Formats: sequence, structure tokens, C-alpha cells
Amino acid sequence: MVSSFDPLWAEILSVGRHASSGGYRRYAWSDADLTLREWFRGCAAARSMEVEEDRNGNLWAWWLPRNWVGDPRGAFVTGSHLDSVPDGGAYDGPLGIVSAFTAVDLLRARGVRPTIPIAVVAFSDEEGARFGVACIGSQLSTGALAPERALGLRDGEGITLAEALIRAGRDPGALGADATLTDRVGVFVELHIEQGRALDLVDRPLALASAIWPHGRWEFDFTGEANHAGATRLVDRHDPMLPFASTVYAARAEATALAAVATFGKVLVAPNGTNAIPSRVRAWLDARAEDQSTLETLVARITERARTHAGSEGVTLTVNTESITPIVDFPPEPRARLAAALTHLGDIPVIPTQAGHDAGILSDRIPTAMLFVRNPTGVSHSPTEHATPDDCHIGALALADVMSAWVTT
Amino acid sequence: MVSSFDPLWAEILSVGRHASSGGYRRYAWSDADLTLREWFRGCAAARSMEVEEDRNGNLWAWWLPRNWVGDPRGAFVTGSHLDSVPDGGAYDGPLGIVSAFTAVDLLRARGVRPTIPIAVVAFSDEEGARFGVACIGSQLSTGALAPERALGLRDGEGITLAEALIRAGRDPGALGADATLTDRVGVFVELHIEQGRALDLVDRPLALASAIWPHGRWEFDFTGEANHAGATRLVDRHDPMLPFASTVYAARAEATALAAVATFGKVLVAPNGTNAIPSRVRAWLDARAEDQSTLETLVARITERARTHAGSEGVTLTVNTESITPIVDFPPEPRARLAAALTHLGDIPVIPTQAGHDAGILSDRIPTAMLFVRNPTGVSHSPTEHATPDDCHIGALALADVMSAWVTT
Repeated sequence: MVSSFDPLWAEILSVGRHASSGGYRRYAWSDADLTLREWFRGCAAARSMEVEEDRNGNLWAWWLPRNWVGDPRGAFVTGSHLDSVPDGGAYDGPLGIVSAFTAVDLLRARGVRPTIPIAVVAFSDEEGARFGVACIGSQLSTGALAPERALGLRDGEGITLAEALIRAGRDPGALGADATLTDRVGVFVELHIEQGRALDLVDRPLALASAIWPHGRWEFDFTGEANHAGATRLVDRHDPMLPFASTVYAARAEATALAAVATFGKVLVAPNGTNAIPSRVRAWLDARAEDQSTLETLVARITERARTHAGSEGVTLTVNTESITPIVDFPPEPRARLAAALTHLGDIPVIPTQAGHDAGILSDRIPTAMLFVRNPTGVSHSPTEHATPDDCHIGALALADVMSAWVTT
Repeated sequence: MVSSFDPLWAEILSVGRHASSGGYRRYAWSDADLTLREWFRGCAAARSMEVEEDRNGNLWAWWLPRNWVGDPRGAFVTGSHLDSVPDGGAYDGPLGIVSAFTAVDLLRARGVRPTIPIAVVAFSDEEGARFGVACIGSQLSTGALAPERALGLRDGEGITLAEALIRAGRDPGALGADATLTDRVGVFVELHIEQGRALDLVDRPLALASAIWPHGRWEFDFTGEANHAGATRLVDRHDPMLPFASTVYAARAEATALAAVATFGKVLVAPNGTNAIPSRVRAWLDARAEDQSTLETLVARITERARTHAGSEGVTLTVNTESITPIVDFPPEPRARLAAALTHLGDIPVIPTQAGHDAGILSDRIPTAMLFVRNPTGVSHSPTEHATPDDCHIGALALADVMSAWVTT
């Protein structure tokens, strides 16, 4: 199977890769991110696609129909994101962008002449790894995230998004909702590696998305009393590590009972000294469920159990809701058109995802659809995240088929 | 009660104090530590005491008997340390040094003429907050810590002790055992704030130390599999946070059963992202017990339970012993001489401590004793660590009485 996928893929394999973990650290507006943005511009230039960076830092590479006059309207837009979680895998994000450029190449090789505009897009800061809020680029563009709030977000070193933008030569004052979005975009199709094992379990290379589970992030802030780890009697302690530990188990148990998922993946301990009882343990709960009411029940139950455990240790608990993303039901119309373009692959499975995506954010304002490429281990957000070369090729070809059908009818 | 304690104490209250926590961050060879070392030299100079910094960075301020010839021998040495844990209190360490200079002043005000040498000493890096090993200064001097090992220790930013010493203008090549120790020191008396509530419970201001509980530090390294916090089914997870959480409870339960103490105060999570199942949780156990065999039983039981929990989650566990400090029984002879000098205070309680001290390290090579000043809340290693001014004065006066009796008989 000959396509431009493999050489394109190889070009970015070393960017932002951490030598010892083997994972990627491609944080928004970091050197690695800027390098990938330059690579994106290079890909566009090599294809004579004009690049536009919108007010929120999202990159758009345009292929306009011959003799198109004026601004693009009703475009077929495809792409994903270039940033990663800490020590993330190679596929989450970049697979959608490499597949998009490959699809453009395939259409050109086939002599397809689009009658409506095509764009390859890279959304800014999808993972939220640096500033703690996910999908910042797409959320700003739909108006879901206010620029004032975004600009004040701080990374782990205390640098605000505003400062990071200035360092990267961008104008923080430009941020805001993109009023052109609904006019210019006819559909946004995001191709993404699957982040679970649903396709592996049914032995199929490709799926269409039905929905994104509602999900959110909550900070559990346990405040106790720092003290000497040797000289303080156990009965005199107010150690926040204990109720935190109970809450980890409460989260697993309640998620199991509700067929949902709950995870404590980030923990900060103060003062974090071996011979000091902690004064404070802050831990972030990531929780997701099939519907909004189950999610609310899940978080309420975990919070209640955490509060009981904290109370019994004389520890104070504050729970802060950092974000809640409601359920996304992808619309049936674009999905049906995608499926029609892929009938040569048989019935494409239609599956929900538990992971957030820019396509979910954008579905508030524009028609969206997603294609998932099989992940044989289901492992994601990890250096060992993986899709086979064959499945990647099938994905890029399917995206080309979908693109071709959409822009020539 | 008039003494030089209060003005001396006030001089260092602001050094290394963190504005928001109110606690002290006086890490070895940091700017705060160097400021305190200069203050120590100033105190000595104001009292015409000659200052010597030994090969391991420990500071000695000497008051030699009139007409003393040659090197000091058989000295009465008193003092403690100037460094702190992260966000530590004001008293742990500095109380012993301020009380020592105050005692010198009291002896001079009383016209005492010592017949044997007196030294006030500040030992380097007692807390181990920066390089992870406690009592570095005293351990190097007794030979308990090899210079090669000490020099290679790294702080949280990857700076070795050797590099830190060079930055502070010291010679890393000088480090090593102090062959003069047994000759020059007749006794080392360390006055320290109590770090528990034993004196508060019996309503007494002062105690003598009987022993230091054996204690140690163990790193529990749980390695699982990073994965997406949303898309990974609970049954497919290998989340190291779960067995870590169980181990926190196991440690508390086993310590309670054995009348010992066990604490997880330091935790590092990788990659520490909200939407990623951790790949690794490293947590440090601080455990202490009345005797060595109980301590061994305690750590063995915690390790066994941690291993079981890790196994049931498909998580790998490695336990590394970072340090074990055997029990210290303070010798009866110097303690009896101290008690005899303090009969005007009635029977002084004799209590064990669960905290490590330079006096414990040095007891391997020289006679040592400790005086504890009441801590009304028992809180230590915390910004709220506290002793009353009255008790501090009683402590300094008692140290002067002990010093006077020792150096004039």
C-alpha cells in the first residue's frame, strides 16, 4: 500500500521524545510544540496549502477549489492536535494530522478536484497537560472558555498562558471566540487512535464515534497538620495522606459499582519530606460515566466517602470542580455520510469513547464526526501506545475516501 | 528573668522564613544556611570565641580556659544545627545554638572561669532535607558516612553535595572522619525542643534523654502501566496508586499494633497527569520503634502487605532501604552529672525520643547527653512548632548550670 503516510510519520518521531521514558513531552507552546507547528507549516507549504493561524493559535492549512473566490465556506475540515500528555504516546493527536495530509496527497494522486474547500487543522493544547484545562484552542474558538480565564491559567512553574504566548511571539490579546467557525466549517472529521480495546475485542481496524462520555476533573484538597514523623503519637496525628488513600479506594469501588471509571493520576504532597507528616495532600479525580446523572452520582458518592474519612482523621476536605464536560452525542447526519463513503469496508462499528476530543468541543457549534483506528493493547497516554502500520494505512485511506466523497458531491 | 536569649533569638527569626507558609526553608548550603552560618560567626566574634569550620562544614566556637596551651582537649561541647526540614519550625535546631550562646553569656555574667574548654557547635545538614540523608555533618565526622557517598548525593534539582559545597566556596576534597573528635570532646550536650508531648502530659518544662528509637527510611517503588484515565477499562488497569493507597493503611495499622510509628510523608507520581493512570508511584516510609526487632517486624509486615496489594493489581514493587539508624542508648554517666547539676529543678524526667539527632550519631564515639525543652502541642517539623518563652529561658539557664558545673570541677 503506497502512500505518503510513512515518511510523514517518520518526520516527527523524534520531536519532544524523552530519552529515558521513550514518551513524548509535547506541551503547549513549549519548544517541542513550536517545532511541530513549524513542521505543520512545512507540510502545508510542500502541498501549496496556505496556512492560517487563527486568533487562538489553531493552525489551518487550506486547499481551496480552483477559482474559489473569497473566504472559505462550508469546508471539509480534518485534523487533530500536536501536543501530548506527560510521557504520552506518538499517536494520540499526530495520527489525525499525518493522516489528514496523507489523505490530501491521495486525493491529488487520484486527480480529485474538490468543489468545496478542504482544511487540515491542528488545535492548540488539547491535552491540557501544561495549564490544567483540556482543549484550550477549540474551547476558546467555540466560546466555551473565556479568554480572561484562559490567559490567567498557570503551568507547574507558575507561568501563565498569557506569558507563554508572549514568549512564543503570540498576542494574548487576540484570544476569543471565532465568529467565522460556523460559516467556514461544513464538517469537522477527527481521526484518532482508539484509547480503549473495543476494536481489538471485535477484531476490526476502524470505527465511527457515537458519543463521548460526560467527564470532568475535581481537585480533592485534604488539609491536615504537618508534624514530626517520628515524635508525633499516632493518636495525635491529622495526616491527610490517610483519607486520601481511602478515597483512592472509594473511587475505584464506586466506579466499579456504576460501570464508570475514576482515577487519581495526579497528586501533590506538601511539604513532601520523608520525616514530616504532610500538611496537605492535593489529588485530582478524573471521572467519566455513560451519562450525566451517573457521573454526578459517582462524584457525589466519592466525595461523601472522602469527607467521612477526612472527618475521622481531623482533616479538612475541600472539593473543587475544575471542569465538567457534558455528554457529546455525535450527530447522525455526517456519520451516515462517512459510513456511506466506507461501504467497501463493510459495516463500520459505531462506538462511544471515554476520552475528550476537540471534535466533542466543536460539536456544540458545527457538525462533527470521528474515526477511530484500532489500538491493539488499548494502552494510551503512555509511551507504549501503539497502532499497527497496516491499521494506520487503512485509517488514512478511509479518511481520503471520506474526504473525496464529501468534497466532490 | 534577664538573659541574652531573647535578642539572640530575634536575630534569626526572619532568615529563610517562607512568606506564605510561615515555615522555614533553611536547607544545607542554601543562601539561608549561609546567612545563619555568618550569624553564628558574628555571635562568636561578639564573645571573642574563635571559630573553626571543620573539614565537614561543622562550625565550632571556642572558649578556652585562660592560659590554655595547645589544641583543646576534653571540652564541654554544646549546640545543635541550623538547617530545617521544608517549612519547618523555628525551634528544631536553632534553640540549641541560641541557648548555648546564652549559657556562655550567663557563665561570664556569673564570673565563672572554666578550667576546661567550652565549644558551641553547629552541625551541618542535620535534617537531610536537601540531599536525603540526615545528620551528614556529624555522620561524616564519626566516619559513619563515607565522603565518596556523601559527595555524590543529589538534591531535588540534581545538584550533588560536591557541587553545592563548591558553590558555597568549600572544598569537597576535605570531607572525612574527624580523627580529633574523641580527644577534643569530653562531652556533647544537645539541647533540643521536644518533638512529642511527653513533657506536656506530665506538666514539666525540661527532660533528659534516655534513648533514641531505632528508625529508618525505605523507598516503596510501585511500577504499573500508564494509560488513559478515561478509555481504559478498570479490569485492564495496572494502577500503582491503588497498592500505594493500601500500603498507607497497612503502615498505620501495623504501627498501631506494634506501638510504633510509620509515616508516608513523601510521594512522587509519574507522569502525574490528571487524565493519565500513573506509570509509577514512589513513596517513602519513615518507620520507628522502641527496639530494633520491633522495627524489623514492622517494616517486614508493611512490605509483605504492600507486595500482596501490588500483586493483585499487576503492579511491580521494589523496596529500597535508604537508611537504618540503630537504637541509641545515651550513656548513664554524663546524664547523672547533668541531673546532679539540676537538682534545684527537682527530679528531671528521663524520656526517650523518636527523632534522630546529631547527639545520637556522635554517641558512637564520644559521651553525649540531651536536654529537651517542653513543646506544649508536640507539633514539630511544622511552622506551628512552639515552645513558650518561659520554657526557653528555663532551658538556657539549665544548660548554663550544667555547663558551669562541668567546666569548674
